[in-house]
Amino acid sequence: MTIAIFPGSFDPITNGHLDLIKRASKQFDKLIVTVAKNTNKNGMFSLEERMQMVKLNVSNLDNVDVKIADGLIVDFAKSMCASVIVRGLRNINDFSAENSIFNMNYNLDNSIDTMLLIAKPKYQVISSSLIKEVFHFGGDVSQYVPENVLNKLKGKIF
Amino acid sequence: MTIAIFPGSFDPITNGHLDLIKRASKQFDKLIVTVAKNTNKNGMFSLEERMQMVKLNVSNLDNVDVKIADGLIVDFAKSMCASVIVRGLRNINDFSAENSIFNMNYNLDNSIDTMLLIAKPKYQVISSSLIKEVFHFGGDVSQYVPENVLNKLKGKIF
Amino acid sequence: MTIAIFPGSFDPITNGHLDLIKRASKQFDKLIVTVAKNTNKNGMFSLEERMQMVKLNVSNLDNVDVKIADGLIVDFAKSMCASVIVRGLRNINDFSAENSIFNMNYNLDNSIDTMLLIAKPKYQVISSSLIKEVFHFGGDVSQYVPENVLNKLKGKIF
Amino acid sequence: MTIAIFPGSFDPITNGHLDLIKRASKQFDKLIVTVAKNTNKNGMFSLEERMQMVKLNVSNLDNVDVKIADGLIVDFAKSMCASVIVRGLRNINDFSAENSIFNMNYNLDNSIDTMLLIAKPKYQVISSSLIKEVFHFGGDVSQYVPENVLNKLKGKIF
Amino acid sequence: MTIAIFPGSFDPITNGHLDLIKRASKQFDKLIVTVAKNTNKNGMFSLEERMQMVKLNVSNLDNVDVKIADGLIVDFAKSMCASVIVRGLRNINDFSAENSIFNMNYNLDNSIDTMLLIAKPKYQVISSSLIKEVFHFGGDVSQYVPENVLNKLKGKIF
Amino acid sequence: MTIAIFPGSFDPITNGHLDLIKRASKQFDKLIVTVAKNTNKNGMFSLEERMQMVKLNVSNLDNVDVKIADGLIVDFAKSMCASVIVRGLRNINDFSAENSIFNMNYNLDNSIDTMLLIAKPKYQVISSSLIKEVFHFGGDVSQYVPENVLNKLKGKIF
Repeated sequence: MTIAIFPGSFDPITNGHLDLIKRASKQFDKLIVTVAKNTNKNGMFSLEERMQMVKLNVSNLDNVDVKIADGLIVDFAKSMCASVIVRGLRNINDFSAENSIFNMNYNLDNSIDTMLLIAKPKYQVISSSLIKEVFHFGGDVSQYVPENVLNKLKGKIF
Repeated sequence: MTIAIFPGSFDPITNGHLDLIKRASKQFDKLIVTVAKNTNKNGMFSLEERMQMVKLNVSNLDNVDVKIADGLIVDFAKSMCASVIVRGLRNINDFSAENSIFNMNYNLDNSIDTMLLIAKPKYQVISSSLIKEVFHFGGDVSQYVPENVLNKLKGKIF
Repeated sequence: MTIAIFPGSFDPITNGHLDLIKRASKQFDKLIVTVAKNTNKNGMFSLEERMQMVKLNVSNLDNVDVKIADGLIVDFAKSMCASVIVRGLRNINDFSAENSIFNMNYNLDNSIDTMLLIAKPKYQVISSSLIKEVFHFGGDVSQYVPENVLNKLKGKIF
Repeated sequence: MTIAIFPGSFDPITNGHLDLIKRASKQFDKLIVTVAKNTNKNGMFSLEERMQMVKLNVSNLDNVDVKIADGLIVDFAKSMCASVIVRGLRNINDFSAENSIFNMNYNLDNSIDTMLLIAKPKYQVISSSLIKEVFHFGGDVSQYVPENVLNKLKGKIF
Repeated sequence: MTIAIFPGSFDPITNGHLDLIKRASKQFDKLIVTVAKNTNKNGMFSLEERMQMVKLNVSNLDNVDVKIADGLIVDFAKSMCASVIVRGLRNINDFSAENSIFNMNYNLDNSIDTMLLIAKPKYQVISSSLIKEVFHFGGDVSQYVPENVLNKLKGKIF
Repeated sequence: MTIAIFPGSFDPITNGHLDLIKRASKQFDKLIVTVAKNTNKNGMFSLEERMQMVKLNVSNLDNVDVKIADGLIVDFAKSMCASVIVRGLRNINDFSAENSIFNMNYNLDNSIDTMLLIAKPKYQVISSSLIKEVFHFGGDVSQYVPENVLNKLKGKIF
């Protein structure tokens, strides 16, 4: 049985994330979406809020769980008996970052590997940050996030 | 049960390929290394020779098979009941190529996805082509290929 | 009045090209799609065949003409009284090439500039070459080229 | 009649910006340089100061106007009856950013397209940020900005 | 006699830096490792602490000196009679940055050139920032920094 | 005493090459420009012709020699007592290639290192191949090559 984790900030979860989660869930016996603390980014939503939003949107996927991790990702993966970390890949900037993170993680614990899913073209050009910026200026982001996330965004700002 | 295929030219198989095969074989129930025809490259070895070299070097991996495919990779994957194509990723040039190939394949048959393994740093800088070029000029490539492949290279040229 | 040229190999024209031509035709008074010889590529179709395929597919665009050019692109542009060369941009490989070509052209004749249209995501991952390769292996490419081009492809190979 | 906007932070305007503005002004009937708020950057100059600096340096270009925009760029473009956003492209980092912004804007309003001008080589390696950093350390930046901007920089810091 | 400087933040010095310093020291008569102020980054260690850590780890290299520079790097290089700035190159992000910095420096003073050493594969994926982040989360970073630096890290945080 | 080699195809030598040679010659005691065989490229000029053209254009540089090498570059470097290979770097494509070549060479012989000079912006967009293509179509390439090389080009083709 192969258990995979899918870590990210999910601040908030987007349709791009959801497509990756759906695709990853088909290749592994169990997928644990992992809402992770990020030292570099100030979140718009709390870890708890982000987890609730993820949960709401993956509840239809039987083999998908959602958890919060606040330490090292490889330690969390190990505690879940996961053997692989799944990440999305949108562009060459993502590649540079994932290259470093993969190696760091693999050197910390080589029983946990990393596999990447290339984002579909329409999702390669979006990110939680860009969606928040456009929303901030009043732009319509309804095609990029689920309706329940859109409502949360509206609640945050107005 | 998840079946994955790992397609490539393997002309010849390198230690970089072998590391990826080993890693991929741990995440899936069965991995089929697929020696594929390439319309753009003139091979040094025949498809049959390449397959034999791959076989020799993966015989220790219980859940790994080796096959030749000469049509579309997605058609071959389907005929093997595979749900995922695994590919290695060394650098941003690879990313551009894999991005196009993933999409083409996914549009041809969306029941077959693609997952990428980032090559380990020491394997990010080698390729079958570079190894053949260095070998051609008399350089020592014994750290990049298994000994049995090195012997095959020697047999080809001298 | 601004006249633009849109040069390329169009071997054959794809839906990606057509989308760029449509978009470019809206920004300039006249757009001349220019079927150009390429010293590096062996074409599947003759220059004349390519031009006919382009013509057939842009006939609905009032301000678009189609021509063949076999010399320097800037010389052709000048002979057409064009002030700008329009090119599509799919990825960073395209950027490197366009960067060199733009500068070469601008230094040859600085009265002719270059402007780039970023391809839409779904067209960023296709190219005439990849389409021909997939078609060669029997894959369905009907979503990437107009029906009349698909028929020409079938005529070429079978 | 084609109206284009050229949005940016212009904090402050550089010779690189000015070259792009001059080049873009030749391809369109009217070009509106648009000083835009940026949520991510803390400006050295106020929006009003930046606009004044731009105005001073484009006053010789007949078909160029300067405006401030503080909402979505596509909304501003529409209010100006512009059909195209012009942006400069220096390197692959710019490409990644422009790729996302183009798509976001095009999805918000597909009547407004984006066209890119590749910066000339000598301008590909400068940015307002780098110029400010070098100036901060006492370096001579007189070849990168107009004299009036240099004076403004001196006024800001000393 | 060729004098080179090797500037960086060294916050803190890593095994990647040390490998580059060792390699550079072999090609030049004298190498001055230069601990530089960085306007963009908030350091974990003071300039003085960083210099002490560098000194401790390069004391075995006869032709290597360590200095602090707080102005323009080219001014510092000149004051040291250096003719070349040496920098490491890990990936394409580094290339973009180095490309701009090289040109800025060369235009400020063309008697001082820049030469790059490509980092060895295993060092291409690490950085002081990533090491600090992993250390912050409790990860073992002993393979990335000298033991004395590891102790300093422990002293900083606990 | 540090001896460096500067290998390349030089088919033919361009002003970009000459600028790099001049810059490199200032940092090392002796620089040996090395005309190398390339298995992948069909040359326009013979190795001997290329060497003559290089010689003609570096005769004013006292510490620069020109040689032909037809084996492994590291073997040639060693036979010249060189400790470093110097290469130019124009863009990210060059980086990927140099990254692989550096590692291959360093693993073959770690007494020989590689250092890169970033090409000046105006030379980042040219290459021998592009110059030959433009010349082939009748374009003026006199700003990219020395006059004596231009004459050789004219002699080759007409």
